[in-house]
Amino acid sequence: MVAVGTDRLHRAVASKMICEMELPTYLTALRERIEQRLRLDTRFPTDCPERLAESIRYSLLAPGKRIRPCLVLMACEACGGEIEAALPAASALEMVHCYSLIHDDLPAMDDDDLRRGRPTNHVQFDEATAILAGDGLLTLAFAVLARDVRPVEIVADCVLDLAAAAGVCGMVGGQQADLEAESDDSITLPELEAIHRRKTGQLLAASLRLGGRIGGADPQTLRSLTIYGESVGLAFQIADDLLDVLGHEEKMGKSVRKDAGHGKRTYPSLLGVEESRRRARQLIDQACEAIAPLGARRAQLTALARYVIERDH
Amino acid sequence: MVAVGTDRLHRAVASKMICEMELPTYLTALRERIEQRLRLDTRFPTDCPERLAESIRYSLLAPGKRIRPCLVLMACEACGGEIEAALPAASALEMVHCYSLIHDDLPAMDDDDLRRGRPTNHVQFDEATAILAGDGLLTLAFAVLARDVRPVEIVADCVLDLAAAAGVCGMVGGQQADLEAESDDSITLPELEAIHRRKTGQLLAASLRLGGRIGGADPQTLRSLTIYGESVGLAFQIADDLLDVLGHEEKMGKSVRKDAGHGKRTYPSLLGVEESRRRARQLIDQACEAIAPLGARRAQLTALARYVIERDH
Repeated sequence: MVAVGTDRLHRAVASKMICEMELPTYLTALRERIEQRLRLDTRFPTDCPERLAESIRYSLLAPGKRIRPCLVLMACEACGGEIEAALPAASALEMVHCYSLIHDDLPAMDDDDLRRGRPTNHVQFDEATAILAGDGLLTLAFAVLARDVRPVEIVADCVLDLAAAAGVCGMVGGQQADLEAESDDSITLPELEAIHRRKTGQLLAASLRLGGRIGGADPQTLRSLTIYGESVGLAFQIADDLLDVLGHEEKMGKSVRKDAGHGKRTYPSLLGVEESRRRARQLIDQACEAIAPLGARRAQLTALARYVIERDH
Repeated sequence: MVAVGTDRLHRAVASKMICEMELPTYLTALRERIEQRLRLDTRFPTDCPERLAESIRYSLLAPGKRIRPCLVLMACEACGGEIEAALPAASALEMVHCYSLIHDDLPAMDDDDLRRGRPTNHVQFDEATAILAGDGLLTLAFAVLARDVRPVEIVADCVLDLAAAAGVCGMVGGQQADLEAESDDSITLPELEAIHRRKTGQLLAASLRLGGRIGGADPQTLRSLTIYGESVGLAFQIADDLLDVLGHEEKMGKSVRKDAGHGKRTYPSLLGVEESRRRARQLIDQACEAIAPLGARRAQLTALARYVIERDH
């Protein structure tokens, strides 16, 4: 990856050249701002137990793609807002994503020992600490939104968007449905898609909506961003399933074909590899079409959508 | 307990007689409104998996003292607000309390099979469902605040108060410190008190603050309510410890002397029974003194504080 300093990004924003940046360069610059913000948000006062703070930083500051916070910043910018204003929401989205990974990895859930090549949180620390680190991150996400999203009038909508996407009819419900479906060999494509919409799609859509709100988006634009987020989310899941079938263990840093080994149904197992690819392309077209009304400023969002189905890691 | 209908409470509010109601009658009336609200807030759409919804309702709608939501409503009323306006915040506080009980009872944490005479959530359902029910309740608490607390301008402060009290420097941090202290026989009174302030005191104080905010309290009144909440919270803990030493299993519906059996240090074990009682009374005096500036409307809060150290269940 090309290293791009904050100054260069600032200059690019100032000169309105950001739409012309190459996507990887742009994402690298966004990620630097996000990492910086995540480090700041996890400098806890001394009344936070040290082991708990360490456990949170271990997972939150681990290397990651930072897809959700990048989408928050990109949506904000695509709506004409400043990246700086969207950083608290970006941080909150990554915290919610990170908490969900910590809890999903627990022995009572997916029982994973490795994530991206490192011991999972409960292996590195212990189960109680991992449960509390997840609880703490989820709580911190809302604290950051409430404390730093401005103007204060949009905080309620941002909190509600995030809570609805992460809650029992969203991500948490999706994880429950996913666990229940694990033993079900007769799952249909609509059922699988309904699980992924809740488990992945809604949080991606919330990333776009929060960025949009902070960028001053009108209700019609928020609807467009929501469709983009849900569609990219599903395409992302299909791409993940395909990598799981076709990928190599060393590339993923986790056990490949693990999902298939658990008897889980995936897109390739239900649709075949070629039809899964076609479905992913169709979703990406849908995503790009939805944000067409945003005009030239949507360039990076379009590029990211296309990238999702081309990536190999 | 005396059954008191909603109508009677409405009339009492309307006629400004509420300060003269007996505390148990008043609490019963408040609890009826709270139960009704909790039932409404857990009517989930069909995209919430049924088992998860059941698990949430199993714990949230179980019989309970409803201390935190009662405090929200009482603080609102003591500041001149309407009970109706504070019901969403009351519901949110009970949800956060309930999630913390579900997670604390897990095998990796306190490993409890019984709570108030009923199987704990993970025993009745399973561990994965219990973890997700807790996650879902915590998330729902913030959704309810964001959706229903009005005016919308105070939502950010309410979310921040709740998140700060429930987070890594509050309740979650207190639980971590408590688990770490379990094996530590040399814990001092200030250390024990610091744990309880985080584990119990902060959420009680947040209950008062949210009620106060909704009732239109000024910053000085919020500070008074915070002192009241923290002091009552600690006194409540001491009373719990005393019941644990002196109580009877049938009264508590859980194993008495369990904490002592785990090697945990309690107020009575550090201070003795008489000195613990004296400390509780001192805290209650402090609580009542703090809210003296609220005038006649503080009557029920004062009565509740006195009741905390007199209760035997």
